Amino acid sequence: MNAEIITVGDELLIGQTVDTNSAWLGTELNRIGIWVSRRTAVGDRADAIRAALDEAFTRVDLVIMTGGLGPTKDDITKKTLCEYFECGYRQDEAVLQHLTQLFSKRGRRLLEINKIQADLPEACSTLMNQMGTAPGMWFDRNGKVLVSMPGVPYEMKHITETEVLPRIREHFTLPSIVHRTLTVINIPESALSKELEPWEQQLPSDIKLAYLPQLNTIRLRLTASGADKRALEAHMDPFWNELLTQCKPYLLAAADTSAVAHCAQAFMNSGTTLSLAESCTGGNIAHLFTLIPGVSSIFLGGVVAYANSLKTSLLGVPHALIAEHGAVSGPVVAAMAEGIRAKTGSDYAIATSGIAGPGGGTDKKPVGTVWIAVASKQETRAQKWHFYGTREHIIERATNTACYQLLTFITDTA
Amino acid sequence: MNAEIITVGDELLIGQTVDTNSAWLGTELNRIGIWVSRRTAVGDRADAIRAALDEAFTRVDLVIMTGGLGPTKDDITKKTLCEYFECGYRQDEAVLQHLTQLFSKRGRRLLEINKIQADLPEACSTLMNQMGTAPGMWFDRNGKVLVSMPGVPYEMKHITETEVLPRIREHFTLPSIVHRTLTVINIPESALSKELEPWEQQLPSDIKLAYLPQLNTIRLRLTASGADKRALEAHMDPFWNELLTQCKPYLLAAADTSAVAHCAQAFMNSGTTLSLAESCTGGNIAHLFTLIPGVSSIFLGGVVAYANSLKTSLLGVPHALIAEHGAVSGPVVAAMAEGIRAKTGSDYAIATSGIAGPGGGTDKKPVGTVWIAVASKQETRAQKWHFYGTREHIIERATNTACYQLLTFITDTA
Repeated sequence: MNAEIITVGDELLIGQTVDTNSAWLGTELNRIGIWVSRRTAVGDRADAIRAALDEAFTRVDLVIMTGGLGPTKDDITKKTLCEYFECGYRQDEAVLQHLTQLFSKRGRRLLEINKIQADLPEACSTLMNQMGTAPGMWFDRNGKVLVSMPGVPYEMKHITETEVLPRIREHFTLPSIVHRTLTVINIPESALSKELEPWEQQLPSDIKLAYLPQLNTIRLRLTASGADKRALEAHMDPFWNELLTQCKPYLLAAADTSAVAHCAQAFMNSGTTLSLAESCTGGNIAHLFTLIPGVSSIFLGGVVAYANSLKTSLLGVPHALIAEHGAVSGPVVAAMAEGIRAKTGSDYAIATSGIAGPGGGTDKKPVGTVWIAVASKQETRAQKWHFYGTREHIIERATNTACYQLLTFITDTA
Repeated sequence: MNAEIITVGDELLIGQTVDTNSAWLGTELNRIGIWVSRRTAVGDRADAIRAALDEAFTRVDLVIMTGGLGPTKDDITKKTLCEYFECGYRQDEAVLQHLTQLFSKRGRRLLEINKIQADLPEACSTLMNQMGTAPGMWFDRNGKVLVSMPGVPYEMKHITETEVLPRIREHFTLPSIVHRTLTVINIPESALSKELEPWEQQLPSDIKLAYLPQLNTIRLRLTASGADKRALEAHMDPFWNELLTQCKPYLLAAADTSAVAHCAQAFMNSGTTLSLAESCTGGNIAHLFTLIPGVSSIFLGGVVAYANSLKTSLLGVPHALIAEHGAVSGPVVAAMAEGIRAKTGSDYAIATSGIAGPGGGTDKKPVGTVWIAVASKQETRAQKWHFYGTREHIIERATNTACYQLLTFITDTA
């Protein structure tokens, strides 16, 4: 079954907000067997919203709409949907009660402008928004369904999970979809594609392979759909195992994951602890680790030794070592890793030092040169990498590679 | 003038890639007087691409398309455009030469699959892609223009800046647009909107106010368009000054900026240095600072003291102080700021300690409680904040507020 997503908001078109909602919705819908066949973004204009709705309903039976439900007067989605479904307003008691509680909890006064959010079109049933003020709306006209939700991502996600997906499953008859995804690192898409081509050509027509590159990682996904989930799983098994074997030299994980999440999971599984000494990655590895709930059981923290003086004062790297080899070198990055491991008493440590650009490169050490060291109590291993792209990309590529290097090190020395 | 954006790629619809290109393109087009009136995302299917193109050209004269130009066989945009514009292929010598150089520089062999990227539809002129392998294409049929670019964001951006925007300016007659944007912090949109409403209602009809909320900051933007840029600027001046006055209590910056960027700029302007001691923000402040090129002149680094033991071992916070007040407290966060400032010798320091959730909250210190301290050589100021939202949002809100608190502190103690 196909669905379409319509996002409403001038801020999306003018580019002051990046639309992360659609990607998330696409993933969630896909997981229950719904393929998003088109996404449309329109501005806060009634005619544009109406036209997008009319067009979408000629193609599909389910439209998910986000945005334009805020309290300010540039938000017109609710009013437009009221006109579109030719109905008046009703005050929703449950929503009004929720608003009263929410504002009291946040220590703010419930203004008239906020109370209006409890007025909903008579033609819709209410999708409660536990995380915010604007409720979602479910319209069903002759079996065609429109879901409207606020554009605030965590509100939209909560409404989708608690209200929308269960209702969709109840309302429509959905096929089964099986995805299997693995993640590889530090191999270019074209090289991998050439390597896998003979194998890909022998795939049965009902199993599809997709490349999903993201900087220096690529997720490879096999997809099949049909009536019976168990039969699909069995049908896919041999092809999945072949793909795993083919990708072994570059395999980061036999899952759809990121390098940091995969690394954190490995540490949580084993109960070992980690600390960091970051120079060129500037706190990005620490930041991504701390985004993971519960990570405090294995992640101790570390030092962002951006200036050379901090490599000495906070990590104990001898000044002479930096003077002799330069801050971007194997000996220094190894000393950084050993220094932070000793100071924190962690089981393992990662250290990074490199040139993220755009300035600071030389002929011998061009922009993108990054030394990464990983250390345990017994051993330290430093490795030189070269990444390309913007400053941000070099930092992200180094972050992914640091996690990969650490996981490989742990496997090698186990 | 209006334009539309079409993004191509199953990975967008299935949600495995977030579309950041469209937001960036929207901003850049808006800056030269082009309003993106609709954005459409379709999958890697020829019929869907053709339908989206046909529909867009009934509404506008300029369509920007990204994606589907990769070397693998699921990318079909180029082939589809060749059919759409009813032409054959030509080999582009300049592109072939660029590919040869690029692969040699990266130490990789130029494969046949890569050479194909130099084959372009005869109907298009070439938009050189200095940052990658797939060139952009400019099609002009009876004055209606289609631009097709690869979906890799930094390649797309580079092609847009160097090739597309100059050509658009040459090809179309564009009006002038004047935007003025300021950024406020820690005031809810509904409260601000209520406060500004009487003023907003008196705005002339050709000046529009937009609210662009982003977690605990809101950008407020005034927009006017017309023929003469200088007249527009003069027309807007008094309203802009009034808006600045109205927003003074919550003003972060009289610009479209982020808290971190604004703070970094202030430090670069004054030449003072900064260090950080992050607990609950877990390296996010350091990470955002280091994304800014040239920041190494003012940002020394710091400590991510995620575990309590590191607050003592790396920052010198007395164990007894943590035992008495808890890690999330004014005395501890003040000692963290003073500790990192003393260890690094920076002019100023920021420290954070709080409960980002989802676990770890208590009745006295619920999830979202964050203590932030800022310190100079002379003075330390600790302040307690309460943020709501997910773990990620609490971290982001604390990050923004830490920068704001530091800037206010510097102004107050100047």
